[in-house]
Amino acid sequence: MRPIGYILTAVILLTGAGVNMRLAPAHADGAATPIFDIYQMPAGYRDWKVVSVAHEAGNLNDLRAVLGNDIAIKSYREGKLPFPDGAIIARLAWKYVPSEENNKVFGREQSFVAGDATNVQFMVKDSKKYAATGGWGFAQFNDGKPVDAAELVGCFACHVPVKERDFLFTRYAP
Amino acid sequence: MRPIGYILTAVILLTGAGVNMRLAPAHADGAATPIFDIYQMPAGYRDWKVVSVAHEAGNLNDLRAVLGNDIAIKSYREGKLPFPDGAIIARLAWKYVPSEENNKVFGREQSFVAGDATNVQFMVKDSKKYAATGGWGFAQFNDGKPVDAAELVGCFACHVPVKERDFLFTRYAP
Repeated sequence: MRPIGYILTAVILLTGAGVNMRLAPAHADGAATPIFDIYQMPAGYRDWKVVSVAHEAGNLNDLRAVLGNDIAIKSYREGKLPFPDGAIIARLAWKYVPSEENNKVFGREQSFVAGDATNVQFMVKDSKKYAATGGWGFAQFNDGKPVDAAELVGCFACHVPVKERDFLFTRYAP
Repeated sequence: MRPIGYILTAVILLTGAGVNMRLAPAHADGAATPIFDIYQMPAGYRDWKVVSVAHEAGNLNDLRAVLGNDIAIKSYREGKLPFPDGAIIARLAWKYVPSEENNKVFGREQSFVAGDATNVQFMVKDSKKYAATGGWGFAQFNDGKPVDAAELVGCFACHVPVKERDFLFTRYAP
């Protein structure tokens, strides 16, 4: 991948494409890091259909909903891989909060609900633009603002173990 | 409520409205139980927008998504109470399952995902038809089939503590 990385870097520097893209910091070994150019949250993502839900304990300690735009949902439902260009996955997350109100009704401590939003992540399929990362561009927004490119460096590597599912951890919940 | 219950029972018996409604078993004290007539899952509910997500531990041990049809979502977003007739809330739930796959990537046991579906519940707003239960009709489907009326007897009573929020426990997640 290094030669491609070098070429990409050179092309971007030479064409001044930095207007819409920014260079992530280089790895210690000189290879270019993934370049993602998703600086705005896709319009209407909060209205998208549910792929599934999850709970991450530990430091994240959140409840999350994974949504998909129509292209993504169609692919999930048809079980077709890889997802076509234009597919977008949104991962919304909220603080994992015990619900006193619900627990009173249930008569025991068992209910956990969504608190404040934490951040929103996206995976955007563009097989050409993001060829170096399985065709997926990665993004994260904190309070609606995109995080620095440096924070997205590790995204793709974590998704490689599920390469056979087009790098998507989340399965469609029936 | 007893007089109303008696009257309702009498009206239904006399008019033969049992074609589309069925009588739930009577309480031990003779009061009629709530009568709900939701025998089919509302069309397209799996495509509805997300209200919020939750985890119920204990015997339920599920992950859940609360969705709303367009009327319900509009009310939630505008914060208007009570919800108008036609609003429908869907509560989908799936088994709470640890994800070995995710845990490997995170490097610790922290990830819980949606397994098999458990059941789907609905609250349907019709202020006239369901006047005796806050304007809400309750339903539950197991494997797509409606549960017996007897299983819905307790629904409304549990929602009374959140009467000031139009009997809805779930808050909209931003």
